[in-house]
Amino acid sequence: MTNEVINLLKSCDGYVSGEEMSQKLHISRAAVWKSINELRGLGYKIEAAPRLGYRIVSSPDKLFSHELEHRLNTKVVGRKVFYEETVSSTMDKAFELAVKGEKEGTVIAAETQTKGRGRMGRVWTSPKGQGIYFSVILRPALSPSDIARLTLLAGVAVCEAIRQVAAVDAKIKWPNDVLIKGKKAVGILTELNAESDRVRFCVIGIGINVNTPLRQLPENATSLKQETGKMHSRIGLAQEVLRRLDVWYDILKMQGFPPVIERWKTLSSTLGRLVRLKDQQNELEGKAVDLDEYGGLMIQTKSGVVVKRMSGDVIEQ
Amino acid sequence: MTNEVINLLKSCDGYVSGEEMSQKLHISRAAVWKSINELRGLGYKIEAAPRLGYRIVSSPDKLFSHELEHRLNTKVVGRKVFYEETVSSTMDKAFELAVKGEKEGTVIAAETQTKGRGRMGRVWTSPKGQGIYFSVILRPALSPSDIARLTLLAGVAVCEAIRQVAAVDAKIKWPNDVLIKGKKAVGILTELNAESDRVRFCVIGIGINVNTPLRQLPENATSLKQETGKMHSRIGLAQEVLRRLDVWYDILKMQGFPPVIERWKTLSSTLGRLVRLKDQQNELEGKAVDLDEYGGLMIQTKSGVVVKRMSGDVIEQ
Repeated sequence: MTNEVINLLKSCDGYVSGEEMSQKLHISRAAVWKSINELRGLGYKIEAAPRLGYRIVSSPDKLFSHELEHRLNTKVVGRKVFYEETVSSTMDKAFELAVKGEKEGTVIAAETQTKGRGRMGRVWTSPKGQGIYFSVILRPALSPSDIARLTLLAGVAVCEAIRQVAAVDAKIKWPNDVLIKGKKAVGILTELNAESDRVRFCVIGIGINVNTPLRQLPENATSLKQETGKMHSRIGLAQEVLRRLDVWYDILKMQGFPPVIERWKTLSSTLGRLVRLKDQQNELEGKAVDLDEYGGLMIQTKSGVVVKRMSGDVIEQ
Repeated sequence: MTNEVINLLKSCDGYVSGEEMSQKLHISRAAVWKSINELRGLGYKIEAAPRLGYRIVSSPDKLFSHELEHRLNTKVVGRKVFYEETVSSTMDKAFELAVKGEKEGTVIAAETQTKGRGRMGRVWTSPKGQGIYFSVILRPALSPSDIARLTLLAGVAVCEAIRQVAAVDAKIKWPNDVLIKGKKAVGILTELNAESDRVRFCVIGIGINVNTPLRQLPENATSLKQETGKMHSRIGLAQEVLRRLDVWYDILKMQGFPPVIERWKTLSSTLGRLVRLKDQQNELEGKAVDLDEYGGLMIQTKSGVVVKRMSGDVIEQ
């Protein structure tokens, strides 16, 4: 009910009378009053003027499902949003839902995670209300070996969204760290559940340090606020990420991976650079010369040989 | 306790007195007697001779954990076995355990599955006590794109075990159907849980129609009994499969996939044959000329072009 009241208030530029709300939503005046108070409790500033009715003065910058869904206009991604103030990890929650058959596109967002995780079992620091933490369930008709490329797609979507919303020159470090001025502001994690040749579902987790103060972040990390000197709307950015993910996911379905790879190349900070790449076995140094069609990084070593790597940690030099 | 009693009885060729069991296992004579009765209830025939003691006359051919573990002598696979008479699916049970951190090598075996599944969401028929139905949890240091080859490894292990135990010319149809005289007697299913570049765990499910009458099987399927004309010990075969899986998994860790690929080629019914391959998009006809290093099937079409396929259903002609 509270969702419907807020949607009605948001859909009007001016005041909406209690009488009008009561009629449109088929609820009593008392129920309207109760919802208004609940919304105020959630952080909405709602003015009540005699005879005119109610008007939203300001909304809290929280990742509420009705805020994320509001005028999102996507085909798949974000059509349904689950919100929790605190969650162990949006990945775990998304996995639980996906195993039970949740449709693709569903998003799980949270203000903070008590056990936020990154790649390789690392921790993802999730200070409350400062960053964006969400996971998206997808059910692409892909094989497990295609998932590295889906992760590139997520990097492209987030990088574009940050450029758009924060007007900053975000770049992608291979495979999918989004950097601002060379420092990591975004973590992207893809996990999947698959048969040997068919993905059943995958979950893309995205963590963005938006307004997070440096002292709440690990070393070498940064936030949008730190790099741009101003606060950014988390809702605005989260919606833009969902829209870009939706667009690129649609392109993937229609045209496959080539456009994703091409776009990734134009956003990359890695290509053309001297890099050191560490993987489980060994270390490699050379110039990152290209991204191949499978998302592998092509590195030209000193001896002139070009080798391809599908995974590892890159240090750009 | 019952496990310990049966192990003690199995470790002796002749009789074991109640007194001896009581002393070795530090239990009362009454507890020995209770265990003997429980074992009889499970299907063990145990002779009791005055003054001599107890002796196993015969064991039921059930996939009890103590039977599968008994003298298995593997490094990893089957070091721990969970047994259930009836389970929805050994895959589901294995996933549950793996998510909670169960070690690699653990096996979940059942006499029947109420929701046994095959690839692509198909059903796997699991008549009670007739076949072998189990899943193995593995935690290989592989990327998701390597899993197709792990599935080939399972095919090799099962094919070798059947040849050994049933003295029949089992062959592998690409990628991992084990055939006897051209008919499918085994289903192998690999499911995984992974990050984009790292498998967290995978579960290999194996279903073998051992003594199953044809009328209990779907069309085109067969059983070992049907093709060899005799009954086979399910425990004996299941143990042999676990041992071969263990050996090949060890080879994989030490030497990578090349020996697996080579062995697969020698066991294959597909290579050298005219085949029709159907995948989600289209159909392809030609001669299966080779298996590449990634487990892809190389098919030479009429025009002479060789194309590679990583997945699909093969019809051998």
